[in-house]
Amino acid sequence: MSDVLKRLAEMLEERKNADPALSYVAKLYAKGNDAILKKIGEEATETVMAAKDGDKAQIVYETADLWFHTLVMLAHHNLSPDDVLNELARREGLSGLEEKAGRGK
Amino acid sequence: MSDVLKRLAEMLEERKNADPALSYVAKLYAKGNDAILKKIGEEATETVMAAKDGDKAQIVYETADLWFHTLVMLAHHNLSPDDVLNELARREGLSGLEEKAGRGK
Amino acid sequence: MSDVLKRLAEMLEERKNADPALSYVAKLYAKGNDAILKKIGEEATETVMAAKDGDKAQIVYETADLWFHTLVMLAHHNLSPDDVLNELARREGLSGLEEKAGRGK
Amino acid sequence: MSDVLKRLAEMLEERKNADPALSYVAKLYAKGNDAILKKIGEEATETVMAAKDGDKAQIVYETADLWFHTLVMLAHHNLSPDDVLNELARREGLSGLEEKAGRGK
Repeated sequence: MSDVLKRLAEMLEERKNADPALSYVAKLYAKGNDAILKKIGEEATETVMAAKDGDKAQIVYETADLWFHTLVMLAHHNLSPDDVLNELARREGLSGLEEKAGRGK
Repeated sequence: MSDVLKRLAEMLEERKNADPALSYVAKLYAKGNDAILKKIGEEATETVMAAKDGDKAQIVYETADLWFHTLVMLAHHNLSPDDVLNELARREGLSGLEEKAGRGK
Repeated sequence: MSDVLKRLAEMLEERKNADPALSYVAKLYAKGNDAILKKIGEEATETVMAAKDGDKAQIVYETADLWFHTLVMLAHHNLSPDDVLNELARREGLSGLEEKAGRGK
Repeated sequence: MSDVLKRLAEMLEERKNADPALSYVAKLYAKGNDAILKKIGEEATETVMAAKDGDKAQIVYETADLWFHTLVMLAHHNLSPDDVLNELARREGLSGLEEKAGRGK
Protein backbone atom coordinates (compact mmCIF):
# COMPACT_ATOMS: atom_id res chain seq x y z
CA MET A 1 0.00 0.00 0.00
CA SER A 2 1.06 3.57 -0.50
CA ASP A 3 3.19 4.77 2.40
CA VAL A 4 1.06 7.89 2.67
CA LEU A 5 -2.21 5.95 2.77
CA LYS A 6 -0.71 3.53 5.30
CA ARG A 7 0.38 6.36 7.60
CA LEU A 8 -2.96 8.09 7.19
CA ALA A 9 -4.82 4.88 8.08
CA GLU A 10 -2.69 4.47 11.21
CA MET A 11 -3.29 8.06 12.22
CA LEU A 12 -7.04 7.65 11.67
CA GLU A 13 -7.05 4.59 13.95
CA GLU A 14 -5.17 6.48 16.67
CA ARG A 15 -7.57 9.41 16.46
CA LYS A 16 -10.39 7.10 17.62
CA ASN A 17 -8.96 7.61 21.10
CA ALA A 18 -8.23 11.32 20.74
CA ASP A 19 -10.02 14.24 22.33
CA PRO A 20 -12.69 15.66 19.98
CA ALA A 21 -11.82 19.11 21.28
CA LEU A 22 -8.24 18.77 20.02
CA SER A 23 -8.56 16.73 16.83
CA TYR A 24 -10.56 17.51 13.68
CA VAL A 25 -10.90 13.79 12.95
CA ALA A 26 -11.88 12.83 16.50
CA LYS A 27 -14.53 15.54 16.34
CA LEU A 28 -15.88 14.08 13.08
CA TYR A 29 -15.99 10.57 14.62
CA ALA A 30 -17.86 11.97 17.62
CA LYS A 31 -20.41 13.67 15.38
CA GLY A 32 -20.96 10.31 13.72
CA ASN A 33 -21.60 8.68 10.36
CA ASP A 34 -23.92 11.37 8.94
CA ALA A 35 -21.42 14.15 9.62
CA ILE A 36 -18.66 12.18 7.86
CA LEU A 37 -20.93 11.42 4.89
CA LYS A 38 -22.01 15.04 4.63
CA LYS A 39 -18.31 15.91 4.21
CA ILE A 40 -18.01 13.33 1.40
CA GLY A 41 -20.95 14.97 -0.39
CA GLU A 42 -19.39 18.41 0.08
CA GLU A 43 -15.91 17.41 -1.06
CA ALA A 44 -17.26 15.51 -4.08
CA THR A 45 -19.13 18.68 -5.11
CA GLU A 46 -16.00 20.78 -4.64
CA THR A 47 -13.94 18.29 -6.66
CA VAL A 48 -16.49 18.51 -9.50
CA MET A 49 -16.38 22.33 -9.38
CA ALA A 50 -12.56 22.40 -9.42
CA ALA A 51 -12.53 20.06 -12.43
CA LYS A 52 -15.13 22.25 -14.20
CA ASP A 53 -12.72 25.16 -13.70
CA GLY A 54 -9.82 23.02 -14.97
CA ASP A 55 -7.69 24.48 -12.16
CA LYS A 56 -5.06 21.77 -11.58
CA ALA A 57 -3.88 22.91 -8.15
CA GLN A 58 -7.49 23.14 -6.98
CA ILE A 59 -8.31 19.71 -8.48
CA VAL A 60 -5.44 18.15 -6.51
CA TYR A 61 -6.46 20.01 -3.35
CA GLU A 62 -10.14 19.02 -3.49
CA THR A 63 -9.41 15.43 -4.54
CA ALA A 64 -7.09 15.17 -1.51
CA ASP A 65 -9.96 16.42 0.67
CA LEU A 66 -12.33 13.89 -0.91
CA TRP A 67 -9.93 10.96 -0.49
CA PHE A 68 -9.14 12.05 3.09
CA HIS A 69 -12.80 12.04 4.08
CA THR A 70 -13.41 8.66 2.41
CA LEU A 71 -10.50 7.37 4.55
CA VAL A 72 -12.21 8.77 7.67
CA MET A 73 -15.44 7.03 6.60
CA LEU A 74 -13.60 3.74 6.00
CA ALA A 75 -11.93 3.94 9.44
CA HIS A 76 -15.28 4.76 11.06
CA HIS A 77 -16.60 1.48 9.59
CA ASN A 78 -13.42 -0.39 10.61
CA LEU A 79 -12.27 -0.63 7.00
CA SER A 80 -8.90 0.37 5.58
CA PRO A 81 -7.57 1.82 2.32
CA ASP A 82 -6.12 -1.67 1.68
CA ASP A 83 -9.66 -3.02 1.42
CA VAL A 84 -10.36 -0.54 -1.38
CA LEU A 85 -6.98 -1.07 -3.09
CA ASN A 86 -7.53 -4.84 -2.96
CA GLU A 87 -10.92 -4.39 -4.59
CA LEU A 88 -9.31 -2.28 -7.33
CA ALA A 89 -6.56 -4.92 -7.76
CA ARG A 90 -9.18 -7.67 -7.91
CA ARG A 91 -10.95 -5.90 -10.76
CA GLU A 92 -7.61 -5.47 -12.53
CA GLY A 93 -6.92 -9.17 -12.23
CA LEU A 94 -10.36 -10.22 -13.38
CA SER A 95 -10.66 -8.06 -16.40
CA GLY A 96 -7.80 -5.83 -17.31
CA LEU A 97 -9.18 -3.18 -14.91
CA GLU A 98 -12.37 -2.60 -16.76
CA GLU A 99 -14.64 -5.27 -15.34
CA LYS A 100 -17.00 -2.50 -14.42
CA ALA A 101 -17.78 -1.79 -18.07
CA GLY A 102 -19.10 -5.33 -18.35
CA ARG A 103 -21.45 -4.75 -15.47
CA GLY A 104 -23.48 -2.36 -17.53
CA LYS A 105 -23.32 0.32 -14.90
CA MET B 1 2.97 5.15 -4.38
CA SER B 2 0.69 2.18 -4.00
CA ASP B 3 1.46 -0.47 -6.63
CA VAL B 4 -2.22 -0.70 -7.46
CA LEU B 5 -2.61 3.06 -7.90
CA LYS B 6 0.59 3.14 -9.98
CA ARG B 7 -0.64 0.38 -12.30
CA LEU B 8 -4.06 2.02 -12.56
CA ALA B 9 -2.48 5.36 -13.46
CA GLU B 10 -0.40 3.67 -16.18
CA MET B 11 -3.45 1.89 -17.55
CA LEU B 12 -5.43 5.16 -17.56
CA GLU B 13 -2.64 6.84 -19.57
CA GLU B 14 -2.61 4.00 -22.10
CA ARG B 15 -6.36 4.15 -22.49
CA LYS B 16 -6.02 7.68 -23.88
CA ASN B 17 -5.04 5.98 -27.14
CA ALA B 18 -7.61 3.17 -26.95
CA ASP B 19 -10.73 2.70 -29.03
CA PRO B 20 -13.79 4.14 -27.24
CA ALA B 21 -15.79 1.26 -28.67
CA LEU B 22 -13.62 -1.26 -26.85
CA SER B 23 -12.70 0.47 -23.58
CA TYR B 24 -14.98 1.83 -20.85
CA VAL B 25 -12.35 4.41 -19.90
CA ALA B 26 -11.62 5.48 -23.48
CA LYS B 27 -15.36 5.95 -23.94
CA LEU B 28 -15.51 8.16 -20.82
CA TYR B 29 -12.56 10.24 -22.08
CA ALA B 30 -14.30 10.64 -25.43
CA LYS B 31 -17.51 11.81 -23.76
CA GLY B 32 -15.42 14.41 -21.95
CA ASN B 33 -15.04 16.16 -18.62
CA ASP B 34 -18.75 16.48 -17.79
CA ALA B 35 -19.39 12.75 -18.29
CA ILE B 36 -16.48 11.91 -15.97
CA LEU B 37 -17.67 14.40 -13.33
CA LYS B 38 -21.22 13.07 -13.53
CA LYS B 39 -19.80 9.66 -12.60
CA ILE B 40 -18.01 11.20 -9.58
CA GLY B 41 -21.33 12.67 -8.42
CA GLU B 42 -23.05 9.32 -8.90
CA GLU B 43 -20.39 7.26 -7.15
CA ALA B 44 -20.14 9.71 -4.25
CA THR B 45 -23.90 9.36 -3.76
CA GLU B 46 -23.65 5.56 -3.91
CA THR B 47 -20.78 5.60 -1.40
CA VAL B 48 -22.90 7.70 0.97
CA MET B 49 -25.84 5.29 0.59
CA ALA B 50 -23.65 2.22 1.21
CA ALA B 51 -22.25 3.85 4.36
CA LYS B 52 -25.78 4.72 5.52
CA ASP B 53 -26.60 1.00 5.19
CA GLY B 54 -23.39 0.10 7.06
CA ASP B 55 -22.83 -2.69 4.49
CA LYS B 56 -19.06 -3.17 4.55
CA ALA B 57 -18.72 -5.06 1.25
CA GLN B 58 -20.84 -2.43 -0.47
CA ILE B 59 -18.86 0.41 1.14
CA VAL B 60 -15.62 -1.08 -0.23
CA TYR B 61 -17.21 -1.62 -3.65
CA GLU B 62 -18.62 1.90 -3.99
CA THR B 63 -15.50 3.58 -2.57
CA ALA B 64 -13.45 1.67 -5.18
CA ASP B 65 -15.81 3.01 -7.86
CA LEU B 66 -15.45 6.54 -6.48
CA TRP B 67 -11.64 6.38 -6.31
CA PHE B 68 -11.48 4.81 -9.77
CA HIS B 69 -13.49 7.64 -11.33
CA THR B 70 -11.43 10.30 -9.51
CA LEU B 71 -8.36 8.62 -11.07
CA VAL B 72 -9.99 8.88 -14.51
CA MET B 73 -10.69 12.57 -13.85
CA LEU B 74 -7.09 13.15 -12.70
CA ALA B 75 -5.72 11.44 -15.85
CA HIS B 76 -8.10 13.48 -18.03
CA HIS B 77 -6.52 16.62 -16.52
CA ASN B 78 -2.99 15.15 -16.88
CA LEU B 79 -2.68 14.69 -13.14
CA SER B 80 -1.70 11.51 -11.28
CA PRO B 81 -2.57 9.84 -7.98
CA ASP B 82 0.95 10.86 -6.86
CA ASP B 83 -0.12 14.49 -7.05
CA VAL B 84 -2.92 13.76 -4.59
CA LEU B 85 -0.77 11.54 -2.35
CA ASN B 86 1.92 14.24 -2.27
CA GLU B 87 -0.70 16.78 -1.23
CA LEU B 88 -1.84 14.44 1.55
CA ALA B 89 1.81 13.91 2.61
CA ARG B 90 2.41 17.66 2.55
CA ARG B 91 -0.48 18.21 4.97
CA GLU B 92 0.88 15.45 7.19
CA GLY B 93 4.26 17.15 7.28
CA LEU B 94 2.88 20.58 7.96
CA SER B 95 0.50 19.75 10.71
CA GLY B 96 0.27 16.20 11.86
CA LEU B 97 -2.25 15.53 9.09
CA GLU B 98 -4.87 17.85 10.38
CA GLU B 99 -3.86 21.14 8.81
CA LYS B 100 -7.33 21.27 7.35
CA ALA B 101 -8.88 21.73 10.77
CA GLY B 102 -6.90 24.91 11.15
CA ARG B 103 -8.24 26.26 7.88
CA GLY B 104 -11.68 26.62 9.40
CA LYS B 105 -13.31 24.74 6.54
CA MET C 1 -49.82 25.14 -4.47
CA SER C 2 -48.47 25.63 -7.95
CA ASP C 3 -50.79 24.09 -10.55
CA VAL C 4 -47.84 22.36 -12.16
CA LEU C 5 -46.61 20.88 -8.88
CA LYS C 6 -50.17 19.84 -8.01
CA ARG C 7 -50.64 18.06 -11.36
CA LEU C 8 -47.22 16.45 -11.07
CA ALA C 9 -48.02 15.19 -7.58
CA GLU C 10 -51.30 13.69 -8.83
CA MET C 11 -49.54 12.03 -11.75
CA LEU C 12 -46.87 10.63 -9.41
CA GLU C 13 -49.59 9.12 -7.20
CA GLU C 14 -51.31 7.53 -10.23
CA ARG C 15 -48.03 6.08 -11.45
CA LYS C 16 -47.85 3.97 -8.28
CA ASN C 17 -50.34 1.67 -10.02
CA ALA C 18 -48.75 1.85 -13.47
CA ASP C 19 -46.81 -0.81 -15.34
CA PRO C 20 -43.04 -0.39 -14.78
CA ALA C 21 -42.54 -1.52 -18.37
CA LEU C 22 -44.57 1.44 -19.66
CA SER C 23 -43.77 4.26 -17.22
CA TYR C 24 -40.39 5.77 -16.33
CA VAL C 25 -41.69 6.73 -12.89
CA ALA C 26 -43.30 3.34 -12.20
CA LYS C 27 -39.98 1.74 -13.14
CA LEU C 28 -38.14 4.01 -10.66
CA TYR C 29 -40.64 3.14 -7.89
CA ALA C 30 -40.13 -0.55 -8.66
CA LYS C 31 -36.36 -0.21 -8.44
CA GLY C 32 -36.86 1.38 -5.02
CA ASN C 33 -35.56 4.10 -2.75
CA ASP C 34 -31.85 3.75 -3.63
CA ALA C 35 -32.50 4.08 -7.37
CA ILE C 36 -34.53 7.25 -6.78
CA LEU C 37 -31.86 8.71 -4.49
CA LYS C 38 -29.12 7.89 -6.98
CA LYS C 39 -31.03 10.03 -9.50
CA ILE C 40 -31.15 12.91 -6.98
CA GLY C 41 -27.36 12.68 -6.60
CA GLU C 42 -26.91 12.63 -10.38
CA GLU C 43 -29.26 15.51 -11.09
CA ALA C 44 -27.79 17.63 -8.28
CA THR C 45 -24.34 17.12 -9.85
CA GLU C 46 -25.68 18.04 -13.28
CA THR C 47 -27.36 21.15 -11.86
CA VAL C 48 -24.06 22.21 -10.29
CA MET C 49 -22.23 21.65 -13.61
CA ALA C 50 -24.83 23.64 -15.58
CA ALA C 51 -24.53 26.52 -13.11
CA LYS C 52 -20.73 26.39 -13.35
CA ASP C 53 -21.15 26.82 -17.12
CA GLY C 54 -23.63 29.66 -16.54
CA ASP C 55 -25.79 28.19 -19.32
CA LYS C 56 -29.29 29.42 -18.45
CA ALA C 57 -31.25 26.95 -20.59
CA GLN C 58 -29.22 24.08 -19.16
CA ILE C 59 -29.65 25.39 -15.60
CA VAL C 60 -33.44 25.41 -16.05
CA TYR C 61 -33.37 21.96 -17.64
CA GLU C 62 -31.25 20.33 -14.93
CA THR C 63 -33.06 22.07 -12.07
CA ALA C 64 -36.34 20.73 -13.52
CA ASP C 65 -34.78 17.24 -13.52
CA LEU C 66 -33.65 17.70 -9.92
CA TRP C 67 -37.02 18.98 -8.71
CA PHE C 68 -38.82 16.22 -10.64
CA HIS C 69 -36.79 13.48 -8.95
CA THR C 70 -37.25 15.06 -5.51
CA LEU C 71 -41.02 14.91 -6.23
CA VAL C 72 -40.69 11.20 -7.09
CA MET C 73 -38.80 10.67 -3.82
CA LEU C 74 -41.46 12.57 -1.85
CA ALA C 75 -44.25 10.50 -3.44
CA HIS C 76 -42.32 7.30 -2.72
CA HIS C 77 -42.34 8.31 0.96
CA ASN C 78 -46.04 9.35 0.78
CA LEU C 79 -45.14 13.01 1.02
CA SER C 80 -46.25 15.82 -1.28
CA PRO C 81 -44.79 19.06 -2.62
CA ASP C 82 -47.26 20.81 -0.27
CA ASP C 83 -45.36 19.40 2.69
CA VAL C 84 -42.19 21.08 1.41
CA LEU C 85 -43.95 24.34 0.47
CA ASN C 86 -45.58 24.46 3.91
CA GLU C 87 -42.16 24.03 5.51
CA LEU C 88 -40.82 26.89 3.37
CA ALA C 89 -43.87 29.02 4.32
CA ARG C 90 -43.38 28.16 7.99
CA ARG C 91 -39.80 29.44 7.86
CA GLU C 92 -41.02 32.60 6.13
CA GLY C 93 -43.55 33.19 8.87
CA LEU C 94 -41.13 32.56 11.69
CA SER C 95 -38.27 34.63 10.53
CA GLY C 96 -38.63 36.58 7.35
CA LEU C 97 -37.53 33.47 5.40
CA GLU C 98 -34.09 33.32 6.86
CA GLU C 99 -34.63 31.31 10.01
CA LYS C 100 -32.01 28.94 8.70
CA ALA C 101 -29.28 31.53 9.13
CA GLY C 102 -30.02 31.59 12.83
CA ARG C 103 -29.63 27.85 13.10
CA GLY C 104 -25.93 28.16 12.48
CA LYS C 105 -25.99 25.56 9.71
CA MET D 1 -46.99 29.75 -9.57
CA SER D 2 -47.15 28.64 -5.98
CA ASP D 3 -47.71 31.61 -3.67
CA VAL D 4 -44.85 30.44 -1.50
CA LEU D 5 -42.44 30.11 -4.43
CA LYS D 6 -43.57 33.50 -5.74
CA ARG D 7 -42.96 35.20 -2.39
CA LEU D 8 -39.62 33.44 -2.03
CA ALA D 9 -38.55 34.56 -5.51
CA GLU D 10 -39.48 38.15 -4.65
CA MET D 11 -37.58 37.99 -1.37
CA LEU D 12 -34.53 36.54 -3.16
CA GLU D 13 -34.58 39.44 -5.65
CA GLU D 14 -34.81 41.98 -2.81
CA ARG D 15 -31.91 40.37 -0.98
CA LYS D 16 -29.64 41.25 -3.92
CA ASN D 17 -29.56 44.74 -2.40
CA ALA D 18 -29.30 43.64 1.21
CA ASP D 19 -26.32 43.85 3.55
CA PRO D 20 -24.36 40.55 3.56
CA ALA D 21 -23.72 41.11 7.26
CA LEU D 22 -27.46 41.04 7.98
CA SER D 23 -28.85 38.51 5.50
CA TYR D 24 -27.94 34.85 5.02
CA VAL D 25 -28.94 35.04 1.35
CA ALA D 26 -27.08 38.31 0.68
CA LYS D 27 -24.01 36.71 2.23
CA LEU D 28 -24.34 33.70 -0.09
CA TYR D 29 -24.69 35.99 -3.13
CA ALA D 30 -21.58 37.89 -2.03
CA LYS D 31 -19.61 34.66 -1.68
CA GLY D 32 -20.63 33.85 -5.23
CA ASN D 33 -21.68 31.00 -7.48
CA ASP D 34 -19.35 28.33 -6.03
CA ALA D 35 -20.57 28.94 -2.47
CA ILE D 36 -24.19 28.59 -3.61
CA LEU D 37 -23.42 25.40 -5.55
CA LYS D 38 -21.53 23.93 -2.62
CA LYS D 39 -24.75 24.34 -0.60
CA ILE D 40 -26.71 22.50 -3.32
CA GLY D 41 -24.24 19.60 -3.09
CA GLU D 42 -24.52 19.58 0.70
CA GLU D 43 -28.30 19.75 0.81
CA ALA D 44 -28.68 17.08 -1.88
CA THR D 45 -26.49 14.78 0.23
CA GLU D 46 -28.54 15.55 3.35
CA THR D 47 -31.78 14.90 1.44
CA VAL D 48 -30.43 11.52 0.32
CA MET D 49 -29.42 10.66 3.91
CA ALA D 50 -32.83 11.68 5.30
CA ALA D 51 -34.56 9.50 2.69
CA LYS D 52 -32.25 6.58 3.53
CA ASP D 53 -33.41 6.95 7.14
CA GLY D 54 -37.04 7.16 5.98
CA ASP D 55 -37.58 9.97 8.49
CA LYS D 56 -40.49 11.93 7.00
CA ALA D 57 -40.02 15.15 8.99
CA GLN D 58 -36.32 15.16 8.13
CA ILE D 59 -37.06 14.44 4.44
CA VAL D 60 -39.37 17.47 4.31
CA TYR D 61 -36.84 19.61 6.15
CA GLU D 62 -33.89 18.70 3.94
CA THR D 63 -35.90 18.88 0.71
CA ALA D 64 -37.00 22.38 1.73
CA ASP D 65 -33.31 23.26 2.23
CA LEU D 66 -32.44 21.81 -1.17
CA TRP D 67 -35.26 23.64 -2.99
CA PHE D 68 -34.42 26.87 -1.15
CA HIS D 69 -30.80 26.77 -2.28
CA THR D 70 -31.78 25.93 -5.87
CA LEU D 71 -34.00 29.07 -5.72
CA VAL D 72 -30.99 31.10 -4.54
CA MET D 73 -28.95 29.68 -7.44
CA LEU D 74 -31.74 30.49 -9.93
CA ALA D 75 -31.97 34.06 -8.64
CA HIS D 76 -28.19 34.42 -8.79
CA HIS D 77 -28.42 33.54 -12.51
CA ASN D 78 -31.45 35.86 -12.99
CA LEU D 79 -33.80 32.91 -13.37
CA SER D 80 -37.03 32.28 -11.47
CA PRO D 81 -38.95 29.27 -10.18
CA ASP D 82 -41.44 30.00 -13.00
CA ASP D 83 -38.74 29.11 -15.52
CA VAL D 84 -38.41 25.68 -13.91
CA LEU D 85 -42.17 25.18 -13.48
CA ASN D 86 -42.69 26.13 -17.14
CA GLU D 87 -40.10 23.56 -18.17
CA LEU D 88 -41.90 20.93 -16.07
CA ALA D 89 -45.26 21.99 -17.62
CA ARG D 90 -43.73 21.84 -21.11
CA ARG D 91 -42.65 18.22 -20.51
CA GLU D 92 -46.14 17.42 -19.23
CA GLY D 93 -47.67 18.83 -22.37
CA LEU D 94 -45.29 17.10 -24.70
CA SER D 95 -45.43 13.66 -23.29
CA GLY D 96 -47.67 13.01 -20.34
CA LEU D 97 -44.86 14.18 -18.06
CA GLU D 98 -42.47 11.43 -18.94
CA GLU D 99 -40.72 12.82 -21.97
CA LYS D 100 -37.50 12.32 -20.09
CA ALA D 101 -37.82 8.56 -20.27
CA GLY D 102 -37.72 8.82 -24.03
CA ARG D 103 -34.51 10.78 -23.94
CA GLY D 104 -32.61 7.69 -22.83
CA LYS D 105 -31.01 9.50 -19.91
